[in-house]
Formats: sequence, structure tokens, C-alpha cells
Amino acid sequence: MTDYRPPLTDILFVLNEVAGLPEIATFAAYPNADPEFVAGALGEAGRFAAEVIAPLNQVGDETHSTITKGAVTTPPGFKAAYDAFVASGWPAMGFPEQYGGGGMPVVAATAVNEMVTTANMAFSLCPMLTYGANEMLLWHGSEEQRAAYLGKLVPGEWTSTMVLTEADAGSDVGALITKAVPQGDGTYRVTGNKIFITWGDHDLTDNIVHIVLARTPDAPRGTKGISCFIIPKFLVNDDGTVGASNNVETVSLEHKLGIHASPTAVLAFEDSVGYLIGEENQGMRYMFTMMNNARLQVGLQGVSVAERAYQAAVEYATERRQGRAIGAPKTEKSPIVEHPDVRRMLLLMRSQIEAGRCLVLKTAEAIDVSHHHPDEAVRTRAAERLALLTPISKAWPTDMGVEVTSLGIQVLGGMGYIEESGMPQHFRDARITPIYEGTNGIQAADLVARKLPMRGGEAVREMLEEMGEVAAFLGKIDDLADIGTALGDAIGALAEASMGLGKMLMDDPNDALAGATPYQEMFGLTAGGWLLGMSALAAHRLLESGDDRFLRDKIATVRFFARHLLPKVRGLLPSALAGAEGLFAIATEDL
Amino acid sequence: MTDYRPPLTDILFVLNEVAGLPEIATFAAYPNADPEFVAGALGEAGRFAAEVIAPLNQVGDETHSTITKGAVTTPPGFKAAYDAFVASGWPAMGFPEQYGGGGMPVVAATAVNEMVTTANMAFSLCPMLTYGANEMLLWHGSEEQRAAYLGKLVPGEWTSTMVLTEADAGSDVGALITKAVPQGDGTYRVTGNKIFITWGDHDLTDNIVHIVLARTPDAPRGTKGISCFIIPKFLVNDDGTVGASNNVETVSLEHKLGIHASPTAVLAFEDSVGYLIGEENQGMRYMFTMMNNARLQVGLQGVSVAERAYQAAVEYATERRQGRAIGAPKTEKSPIVEHPDVRRMLLLMRSQIEAGRCLVLKTAEAIDVSHHHPDEAVRTRAAERLALLTPISKAWPTDMGVEVTSLGIQVLGGMGYIEESGMPQHFRDARITPIYEGTNGIQAADLVARKLPMRGGEAVREMLEEMGEVAAFLGKIDDLADIGTALGDAIGALAEASMGLGKMLMDDPNDALAGATPYQEMFGLTAGGWLLGMSALAAHRLLESGDDRFLRDKIATVRFFARHLLPKVRGLLPSALAGAEGLFAIATEDL
Repeated sequence: MTDYRPPLTDILFVLNEVAGLPEIATFAAYPNADPEFVAGALGEAGRFAAEVIAPLNQVGDETHSTITKGAVTTPPGFKAAYDAFVASGWPAMGFPEQYGGGGMPVVAATAVNEMVTTANMAFSLCPMLTYGANEMLLWHGSEEQRAAYLGKLVPGEWTSTMVLTEADAGSDVGALITKAVPQGDGTYRVTGNKIFITWGDHDLTDNIVHIVLARTPDAPRGTKGISCFIIPKFLVNDDGTVGASNNVETVSLEHKLGIHASPTAVLAFEDSVGYLIGEENQGMRYMFTMMNNARLQVGLQGVSVAERAYQAAVEYATERRQGRAIGAPKTEKSPIVEHPDVRRMLLLMRSQIEAGRCLVLKTAEAIDVSHHHPDEAVRTRAAERLALLTPISKAWPTDMGVEVTSLGIQVLGGMGYIEESGMPQHFRDARITPIYEGTNGIQAADLVARKLPMRGGEAVREMLEEMGEVAAFLGKIDDLADIGTALGDAIGALAEASMGLGKMLMDDPNDALAGATPYQEMFGLTAGGWLLGMSALAAHRLLESGDDRFLRDKIATVRFFARHLLPKVRGLLPSALAGAEGLFAIATEDL
Repeated sequence: MTDYRPPLTDILFVLNEVAGLPEIATFAAYPNADPEFVAGALGEAGRFAAEVIAPLNQVGDETHSTITKGAVTTPPGFKAAYDAFVASGWPAMGFPEQYGGGGMPVVAATAVNEMVTTANMAFSLCPMLTYGANEMLLWHGSEEQRAAYLGKLVPGEWTSTMVLTEADAGSDVGALITKAVPQGDGTYRVTGNKIFITWGDHDLTDNIVHIVLARTPDAPRGTKGISCFIIPKFLVNDDGTVGASNNVETVSLEHKLGIHASPTAVLAFEDSVGYLIGEENQGMRYMFTMMNNARLQVGLQGVSVAERAYQAAVEYATERRQGRAIGAPKTEKSPIVEHPDVRRMLLLMRSQIEAGRCLVLKTAEAIDVSHHHPDEAVRTRAAERLALLTPISKAWPTDMGVEVTSLGIQVLGGMGYIEESGMPQHFRDARITPIYEGTNGIQAADLVARKLPMRGGEAVREMLEEMGEVAAFLGKIDDLADIGTALGDAIGALAEASMGLGKMLMDDPNDALAGATPYQEMFGLTAGGWLLGMSALAAHRLLESGDDRFLRDKIATVRFFARHLLPKVRGLLPSALAGAEGLFAIATEDL
């Protein structure tokens, strides 16, 4: 298996030139966001990810986390790596200093997370889930709850989970039936079976703090009757030490296609003591406040696993010799990277990864700005942009991750199908990302039915306008004009789809929903092209101060994306606007 | 895991309305090709596939074929199923009666093969490889060799393998170094290590007949110095019984992403007795004669595994209830098949499977016509069409198979990621098909560099013209005119790409090769649309004799393909014509 080389130059370029780090560094909430400081921190984090976490990726895949008599064992090396991770302070970096965090902005924390995830996606899920729980407690927990848990959770001494899904309540969270009965002393007793709980049990820490959705006895039906509880695996004594078992049984672990090292648990709660977060029946609302970042971090996983596959594919393609490329010396075989079709695959991988990285970090910027920009109007506008970008930056990079890891297999040919090559793991790991944290179909429905109509369509129209400005700027520079043309054409098709779907939404929402996924793909490609276009403009500007290979390569990568990927946008337009009638022309029983 | 329901109605429709079975039935070589007889035979074969072979698919995936002390053990049930398969006579159906075969045309044999493959792809590889060896012996073996082996191989009492690949000779077959030293008695002694040998060893039969590529001591370099040998695992006594070991050691089995039940062996030949097929140094030429059918059968695997995933996805989507579809009663949850995005995924699966089936069976028709049509001019033209269709019908359905099995996972959501659902196996199994029997990149290079220039481009031009006629016919029928328009536009884009690449091929072949894969995708989509368009025309005509749900559904499926898939063709045009310069704009060491 290939070593992992953190793509620091590109990450820093995107942070500084696309994702607004220099401005974010001026926010009072982020004392540790100075670009130089962030660069140093990313260097350290990258080294840690590459040296400590990455080497455990394949062994984790081969060994799996396992369960024996209700106790989960993580793969060899995971406990030591996790301890080192906690000792390094990385889990805390994205949290406010007052809770023991590092005070770094979300853009920078996301960049660190990219490297941890690329090093080992299954491992990264554990701190990712904990981070989500931390946000939940920070925003909605009581002062007492924050005091009781954040001190342990922020540094990663304990971990946390998100316990939502039940057998009959997956995408339809409102259908859950787990019961929470108030005890009159402020606590509840929670009983129910939950499935698909990521890192739901493990042996890395002394305690696990479950964030659990359940219903109180007289709760309204559906999502309006869901409450949110803290249920620690072990009760916590008054002095903060770990106490008695809280009746959370690990029933089994799932046998999954990938992320084998991540224990996906079936958990049975039986009269487990639960502490209500906030108010009863507000659970879904609280969940929604964390959803943007959670979805973004899953989008990031698509970028990360694709990056790992890309690095392995480049290494193989430059070493493996087969056939003779046109123009190569007659006497020797060529590295397959010299064959145009192999190189095309590598650039498909590279350019889409760079687009995905831009998209994810741009969305992270929107989180930072929406929370901490000094100007309220700017914050409001950023929150809206965040709402619009979230489904796109969850769905597009994860679909891309499946495609790019599949290309990774293809570059290796027969070797790519052999597990020892490491490539199948990336392909298998990637395949979960379009599913969890809201399937990409759910994201598309959210984009079309909730986000497209925001402010009567103005939110989308303004974003299209901003994109159009980038296309226009590109058009003014001779060297980049072709990129501007391709971007402009994609924006035109996206605008047409937006107007068409907006109208359908009013006439017959099913027609709009029928086009939601192709529309989302159009949006993802175009947004990727927009941010890569910004990257090309920045590279062009920076090149004026002196030649630089990275910057020239960046423009070449953007040009590849413009030529090979952006034209797909218009090809998706008829599918986006086809409406629902054709979908139901065949009776269900004839399918 | 879902049962397998053979799609007999659609297979027979395609055979009769698209793939020319009625005409093929008139060829003297095929006494058993009458459409009624074929229909009966397919019914029987489908029942056998569903009842005997399909139930072993998941257990084969879980158990794998294993190796202990050089001996391979297939999964439980495989030996009994294989014995029943041999007893049923299906392995022999596609062979001439004079060699104990069933005298059925390739179109019909391919239809049977679809069902066996859908039932159990890993199982199906064993008879598929044997079939290829049979063709090799039939066309290039001596009378004596045919007498010695075909009697055992045609009915499947022994199996066969294709032994080409070595560690440094994969796509570049000409680099192989296995040595064959003539012994002066007409036999050779063969020594070398071979990898990736499908069903290279197993416990299903008494003997295995390896067809091995090797070099004689003074052979020319490259592909011109390759000879082809018969090397039985056990030598065959004069009376036809199995004799002494022939020094073929099974070194190991590969750990693969999928097709776990198919033992992929590393074989070591050491002074193994080999019998030359035909003449020395003609091995590659012989291999090429079998390549069309071998590639076609791999293309078929894409259709088959996609079909299995589709059936399982439909079953899940009609049973699983989540959320409420627009317009559904307020009080109940809807089966997810009622949600537009889920239905869209199912129709993406269905319409592409039907396009793939058409493409594969149309190519099989070209094999039959090229061999056995009474008119030599027709045979010649069919051989040319076969040459053109082969890369397309290998590559497009196999890429489609990966996409469709991935959609199958997506339809199931979280359950789709759980191995017990059966869906991950289809996704993992499908992933080999774009790789083996010539990667899809190799197919694309073949399409652009060898097939596009055939007769100065006339072969492609004539096919485009034929496609255009179908589009024109569709345009004349009110109910189908929209399909004709979409097809016509795709053909226009494909024609533009063909002309552009044809010109590049003369100016700088690297430019043409750079666009080979997107061109191949354009060709596959358009050819699929063409044959589906023929299907819609046939359905429309047949509907004149009375209403029929299958026929109406067929038109609806074609319409979905025309609306959602065909517009992608034009979106691929810029990528096909982008040339090579952009691919090499980034230095290899900067990738």
C-alpha cells in the first residue's frame, strides 16, 4: 500500500485563495487562525496523519472491529494511535478555547480533518462523530451538561455517537419509536433498539456518550415529537469518574462492504438513564443545527478517499511499465502514465478532487462567516449560502469519491482488483458516503424543495450571478478565456434548470423532485468549475510575481476540468427537466 | 437475498425483434435455432439457472474458493451444481452437433449464458472459459487434438482455461516470457509462471485443459513470437483416461474484491508437456479469432450482474416503506418506489440493462451472420460490423454494470452497504468486468485506432447511417417522435466525434487516443439508443395487433433512456475531441 503524502500546498492554496482564510483570521472568535499559524499546524497534522494514522488503514480493513460477548475490539494499533491522537490535541482544535479547544476556524479544522480522513477514513469517523456531539452540547446543552461532558469530549478522552436510526426509521427519522419516560427527577429512562450506530461501541476510551433521539410518552407523531438525550454508556459519578453501567447493550456489529475498522453497532437501550438536551420535542431542530457541518464532513470524506486512491494510482502508473507509448524509444516499455488514456483517468481523478476540496472548504468558510463575521447582514447571507451549499457539498464529492476510487482500480488494471493492492478498500470505503448522513437523493430533494425556493429563488440566482462574474473575469484573460467559456455555458444550463425546476415546484412538486438528482449533479459540477475558475484566476495573478510549477499545474488542472467535466452539465439538463410522468409510466408491479 | 427471476419475455423480444433470430434460424449450420424451440430451451435454462445455480451465489461469495497444500476447494454446493449443469447439457448447447454440441446459434447460447451469469457470475466463468477453449480447438486445433479433447470439453466433463498473463505481461501480452522447448517428438516442454488464471484450478472435474501462451527458443520478440499450447493438468492416456500429473503447480489464489467463488490462480508450469496448436508464432492470431466472442461474453456479464442488482432493488423498493410520497394517503408510509428519485434510479438501471442486452445480442447476431450466412458478401459485412461492435459491447455494458450495481446499493440505502443484503456482492463482482479480457481503455484504443479507420471510416459511417434510419422511422410516428429526436441528436454528436477523431488519427494519433474513452461511451450510449429505438418501433408495430403491457412498458423504458441517457452523448463530445496536449500539460513528476 502506498504511503500517504498530505497535499499541503493545494490545501493551503484553497484555504487562502478560495475559502477566505485571511478574512476569517480577522474574526475575534478565532484567535488561532492566522494563515501562517494554520500552515504550520497543517504541516504538523499532516505529518501525524501520515505517520501514525495512515499505516493502520489497511490493517483495519483486514482485521475489522469485532465483537465478542458484547465487547468490541478495534483493530491492532488503533488504541495506541487514538491515544496519540488525543495527546496531540488535534481532536480539540476546532473548539472554542473556553471549552479546552484550539480556537481554530471550521475551515482549518476541516483541512486537518481531510488529512486524518485520507489517512484512515474508518478511524476518522470516531472523532468526527464526537465533534458533532460537542457541537450539540455547545449549542443546546445546559451549562451543567457542558461542564459534565465537554471537558472529556473536546480533547477526545471520551467519544460520542449519534443515535438516530431504527429498523423502520432510516431516511424517515420521524418514524422512530424508542421511548423516553420521565422519572420526575429531571432524568428519563430510555428503551429502544437502534441500528447503524457508527463507533457505537469500542475499546478506545473509558466511556462513550451517546446522543440519542427518542420519544416521550405523549409526544406528537413524526419529527415534531422527537427529543434528544445524553445517554452515557457508563454513568458518570459526581466527581467526574466513570461509574456504573447504564444498560446500553451492544447487540451486534454490521458486516459492511467497507470502513471495516469502524464498528457499526446495533445498540439496545433498556431503561437507560437519559438526560434531556434542551426542551422536549425539539430534538429534530437541534439535529438540524449540526447537520450542515456533519454533511459537510461526509462530503469531505469523498474528497479524502478519492485523494488516497489518486496518490496510489499515480504511484502505480509511474512505476508500472506496459506497452510503448507513441513516440517512446522502441527499445523500452513505457510507464503506463505515458499512455493518454491512463493519464486522462489520473486527471479526471485529480481535477475532481481539487474541485471537491474547493467545494468543501468554501462551504466550511460559510460556516465560519455565518457564525462569526462582525456584520450581521453578512452572517445572514452566509447562513443562506451555507444552506444552499450543504446538500451540494455533501452529495457531489461523495458521488465523485465513488467514481474516482473506481478509476483508481481501473488505472491499476488486474492488480486493482486484488485486495492487497489497497485500491479495493478505497472503493469499498467510498461507497458508504453517498448513503449516510442523508442519502444523496435526500440531499437532492432538500436542494430542490427547500433550498431552490429560498427567498423566491434569489439565493440561487445570486450564486449564479457570482459564478457568472468569475466566468466573465476568466473571459478577460487570454490564457484563461477557454475556461471562462466552458464555465459560462455550464452556468447557463444550470440557470435554465433552476428556472425550470422552480416553476415545476409550484405546478407539481413531483416533477421537480424527479429532476432533483441530475440538477444536483449539474450544480456540483458547475460550482466545482466556479471555484476552480477562482483558483485559476488566483494562480494567474500569483504567477505575475514569478514562475511557479504548482500554479501552472493548477491552471492546467482547471483547464482539464473545464474541457472534460463542465460540458457534462448541459448534457444533464434534459434529465433534470424531464418531469415525473415518465417515471410512473410503468406500473410498479411491472418493474 | 432475492431470488432470480429470468427476464425471459425481454430476452425473447430482443432475440426476435432486434437480434435477428428468425433469420439466423434459417442458416443451415443451426438446426436448433427455431424461435419456438429457442423459447422453450430458454425457459428450461432459466429455470435451471434460477433453481440450481442462483442459490449458490451468496454462499460462494462468503466462502470463497480456497487453497490448501496446492489443492483448490470450491464453495459448498458448487460441485453438485456443476455436475447437474453438465448433466443438463447446457455447456454444449452452442457447439456444432458433430462435436456433441447442441447446434444452437451464438445469439441463443448467449441468451442462455445471460441467465447462468445473472444467477451466479463466479460460477459462470468456468463454462465461459471452457467455451473459449473449445472454439480455439475447433478452429485451430488438429483433427487429433479435437478428437482428444472436445469430447470431454464440449459437454463440460473437463474444463479449460486461458493462460496468458504474467507478472510483467498484462495488457502488454507480447511481453510474456514463458518458455516452450520442442522435444523433437512433436511435443514441447513448457516452463513459466502465469497469473490471474480464472478457474485455473478447482475440484469440479477430473482434469483441466490449459490453453497456454508461450515462446519457443528462437521466437521473434513481442506478439509475433507467441505460440499457443494445450497443457492438460493431468496427461491423457491413449484410451482417453486421465493419467499422470503434468507438473502444473497451483501456487496460490488471489484475494479479490469480488467473484470470490471463482478461483483466480497463480500457476507454475515446469517442464510441463505442451501440445502446439496450429503453427509456431501464430498464437496471437489464434487468440484474436476467439477474442470477439470472449469480449462479448464479458460485456454480457455487465448486463447480467446489473440485472441481478435491479431485481433485488425493485423487490426492496416495493417492500420498504419510508416517508410519504406526494399525493399518498396521510395515514401511511409509502413504499420507497413511489418516491420519484428512487423510481428514477430503478429506471436508470432498467433502461440501461435493456440497452446492454440489445447491444450484446446484436453483437452475437453479427457473430452468427459472419460465420453462417449463405451470402459471402453479407458474411464479410457482418464480420466488419462485429469488429466494430466488439469493443463497444465489451466496454459499455461493463461500465454500466458498475454504475447500475452502485445504484442498486443506493436504492437500498444503509441496508445496501450491509453484506447480508447481497447488494455489495453485485457491486464487487461487477468491478472486474471493465478490467479483464482487455481493459475498457484497451477497448477504446481498439475502437479508435483500429475500428474507426476500417475502410477509410466507411464502416462507422454506414452504421451511423443505419442508426439514422431508425431515428427517422421513429420521427414518423407521433408517439415515438420524441425518441427519434433524442436519438438523432446523439447520432449527430457521434458523427461529429467520429469525423474529428478520424482526422486526428491521421494528424497525431495521441490526440485520437486521448479521446478514445469518451468516444467509446458516446458510441455505447448511441448504439444502445439505436437498438432500443428499434425495440420501440417493433413494440409499436406489435401493439397494432392488440394491447400488451410488456410492449407499452418497453416503449416507456425506451423513452426514459431517450430523455435521461441519450442527451449525455453530446455532453461527452468536447471531452472526446479535447486532444492530448492538455493531458501532458502537467509533468509526470507533478501528478
